[in-house]
Amino acid sequence: MRIKKRSSESHTEQQYMIRPIHVNHYGRLFGGELMKWIDEVAGIAAMRHSESNITTAAIDNLQFKAPAMTGDMIVLIARVTYTGRTSMEVRVDTYKEDPDGTRHVINRAYLTEVAIDADGNPVEVPELIIESEAEQLEYESALKRCELRKQRRQEGF
Amino acid sequence: MRIKKRSSESHTEQQYMIRPIHVNHYGRLFGGELMKWIDEVAGIAAMRHSESNITTAAIDNLQFKAPAMTGDMIVLIARVTYTGRTSMEVRVDTYKEDPDGTRHVINRAYLTEVAIDADGNPVEVPELIIESEAEQLEYESALKRCELRKQRRQEGF
Amino acid sequence: MRIKKRSSESHTEQQYMIRPIHVNHYGRLFGGELMKWIDEVAGIAAMRHSESNITTAAIDNLQFKAPAMTGDMIVLIARVTYTGRTSMEVRVDTYKEDPDGTRHVINRAYLTEVAIDADGNPVEVPELIIESEAEQLEYESALKRCELRKQRRQEGF
Amino acid sequence: MRIKKRSSESHTEQQYMIRPIHVNHYGRLFGGELMKWIDEVAGIAAMRHSESNITTAAIDNLQFKAPAMTGDMIVLIARVTYTGRTSMEVRVDTYKEDPDGTRHVINRAYLTEVAIDADGNPVEVPELIIESEAEQLEYESALKRCELRKQRRQEGF
Amino acid sequence: MRIKKRSSESHTEQQYMIRPIHVNHYGRLFGGELMKWIDEVAGIAAMRHSESNITTAAIDNLQFKAPAMTGDMIVLIARVTYTGRTSMEVRVDTYKEDPDGTRHVINRAYLTEVAIDADGNPVEVPELIIESEAEQLEYESALKRCELRKQRRQEGF
Amino acid sequence: MRIKKRSSESHTEQQYMIRPIHVNHYGRLFGGELMKWIDEVAGIAAMRHSESNITTAAIDNLQFKAPAMTGDMIVLIARVTYTGRTSMEVRVDTYKEDPDGTRHVINRAYLTEVAIDADGNPVEVPELIIESEAEQLEYESALKRCELRKQRRQEGF
Repeated sequence: MRIKKRSSESHTEQQYMIRPIHVNHYGRLFGGELMKWIDEVAGIAAMRHSESNITTAAIDNLQFKAPAMTGDMIVLIARVTYTGRTSMEVRVDTYKEDPDGTRHVINRAYLTEVAIDADGNPVEVPELIIESEAEQLEYESALKRCELRKQRRQEGF
Repeated sequence: MRIKKRSSESHTEQQYMIRPIHVNHYGRLFGGELMKWIDEVAGIAAMRHSESNITTAAIDNLQFKAPAMTGDMIVLIARVTYTGRTSMEVRVDTYKEDPDGTRHVINRAYLTEVAIDADGNPVEVPELIIESEAEQLEYESALKRCELRKQRRQEGF
Repeated sequence: MRIKKRSSESHTEQQYMIRPIHVNHYGRLFGGELMKWIDEVAGIAAMRHSESNITTAAIDNLQFKAPAMTGDMIVLIARVTYTGRTSMEVRVDTYKEDPDGTRHVINRAYLTEVAIDADGNPVEVPELIIESEAEQLEYESALKRCELRKQRRQEGF
Repeated sequence: MRIKKRSSESHTEQQYMIRPIHVNHYGRLFGGELMKWIDEVAGIAAMRHSESNITTAAIDNLQFKAPAMTGDMIVLIARVTYTGRTSMEVRVDTYKEDPDGTRHVINRAYLTEVAIDADGNPVEVPELIIESEAEQLEYESALKRCELRKQRRQEGF
Repeated sequence: MRIKKRSSESHTEQQYMIRPIHVNHYGRLFGGELMKWIDEVAGIAAMRHSESNITTAAIDNLQFKAPAMTGDMIVLIARVTYTGRTSMEVRVDTYKEDPDGTRHVINRAYLTEVAIDADGNPVEVPELIIESEAEQLEYESALKRCELRKQRRQEGF
Repeated sequence: MRIKKRSSESHTEQQYMIRPIHVNHYGRLFGGELMKWIDEVAGIAAMRHSESNITTAAIDNLQFKAPAMTGDMIVLIARVTYTGRTSMEVRVDTYKEDPDGTRHVINRAYLTEVAIDADGNPVEVPELIIESEAEQLEYESALKRCELRKQRRQEGF
């Protein structure tokens, strides 16, 4: 019987202080740098869920809602929102955290991660246990996103 | 009167040899690294079109079609496919190039780049001149992608 | 009246997958790389406690108990264990996390972080609220470590 | 019979936006960083010509004609200018590109690249087809540079 | 009979110009960066003494006495101060060097490095020859530090 | 009266252990990486001689005599060999150091460094004191290299 796991078991949180090394030539967090952080934290969440190596198959709907500058503290939170047979959808929320702890969303992304073995072949992942209404809604949105990706592949846009 | 520019004027090509520094622990090009390269080349194309600073606003439909390994040569080609008043859509095709020059698509991404001034405020960009049927089709797909992004923001998925 | 904060309010957790970029020439996590990660996570915990900029003043008793290799997942957990007037002691535990979630301690370090203003002058930090016996024991050990550091500065060894 | 290839077949173009990560402590593109970019683009051109691995054997006459600062766009263009039996000379021109597309030369370098097999032994490279008077002149200058390098090795200066 | 070596045989000196890549968001040398440099130079000194691979086992009493800023020149000097059977203590002094050559101490650290073979097992190191009173005093302090580390492991603070 | 300085006053030595981060995809020290190290150590020697900021103006006759691989220890030694009014020639010898301390030359390079003030304008440098026959010979070779560079600029090859 297939193993089941909770979303909370793969919950992963990562923090970065934006330093000169991370910014573009006008002091603003370089988009590509944030994308790299998002991919990394999503990968860790997916590894924790699947207990195997993973590879990123797709990134969906990556919208930068607000800029971040040198000296800002960035927090990324990743959780598994949907599981197929060998793939997982991971949602990554990126926040700017004020010194007093207030967090402002600056990005939300959905990544499709595929569990792979040592030869790079897909392997089965534990099924996601849905525990709350919020998780149920997220799961249904994930199905919609899946459907949309398929449709776009067919229509080619 | 608003300036007009051709897509060919912002055409940008970038090459990378995959070295140990770019790969994850099983010798495979780290997804986040490729995303960083995609964002960088899209930014250069957008700067060449807009003749101003830019910031990445969104990334759409980033699908990794094939892996790339240490020692592979990667080629990224970026071109402006659509212009709004202050935003540009940039398409980035990523290829793996064989020693004999054959290129295999491994990723296609669409990025929305916004032209900004020194204070980070949006500025107008030159209008895109459509010169071929292929460019016309790409332009129409871009409109569809725009429409879809709006719809998703409203429906929230 | 001076603000007081709980240790849990500055609790910070960070994860790293060890990639070729992090290892020395025999595939082992480079000690200096881990030290950098420890300093970073301690800095974030100290910023969260003090709500100000910080600078590392001392690192105590940094012992590497087990090696970590390419492909291992490393988890760092930082918490404030003691506060002086302008300084904080932060304990950082570093673990190797197995795919099934089991964690093995590979390092424990104590860092002294000083809260500073924009000119680099020390500023007062919130007092630490002790909430459990474990926190009380940690606090007493911190006093011992403080005492020892003073004694060593005097005796010069 | 030995394969022949055109210079245009190995033409390689690379772009960089100068960011804080690339500059020295007075905001100026770090010479060593540019040298690294020059070596990389020359290597890619040489790989494209030889269809094999390569190693840099010599760099000749690397003159920095003008500085480049944070925020500048740098363009490097590499082409094969001469071929021996197992070695190739690659010319790399480095430009600063203004927002309107104007390019200013800031460096010209000649690199000798040797084609090697998996064991590091030199392998034969395709012969260069000379197609224009400019390419002929470049070829003759390359012979002069070759001659000069030999002479300097003998006289030891 | 066991080989003996002088401290001067492993003397290692390293220099760094602090660039934007090395500083935190308020222009100050990032503590973790300096720790990485200290670990690297200690490792080179230990390799020179032991003529084998090494791994860092402990770092003791790392005190940052003064800040360093972008544009400062940093000099690190490492020397072996004590040898056990398979371990070496290395002292690393870090200086800020003024343009006129004056050096100001900003950090002193003691690292315990263990010589290891290809499988990571400890191997014997050459015995340290004590040649001066200063070296004798350093050696005695090292014994004290050793003793203290043992005591702390037992008492667990 | 113009200050005079000895070559030994600017003598600078730097060490690197070649790690995965430094090598290309076939385990060999990436030429561009070594060039970066050469430029850095030459810059430090030139700063020590001139007591001012510097910029690299030219690199001459950079020949890679032998490869270096992951795990090798690399030593770079820089010394000022010639001074003009505002420029200095710096010679950088790169060695591979065996565990027993034996050093094998793998590269010799000559760099022209110009002393500059805060606005990037050239400033006068101390005159070089010639103290030995070897230094005298080096000085005469430097004059020849200077002459050659001028001639090449005129003849354009």
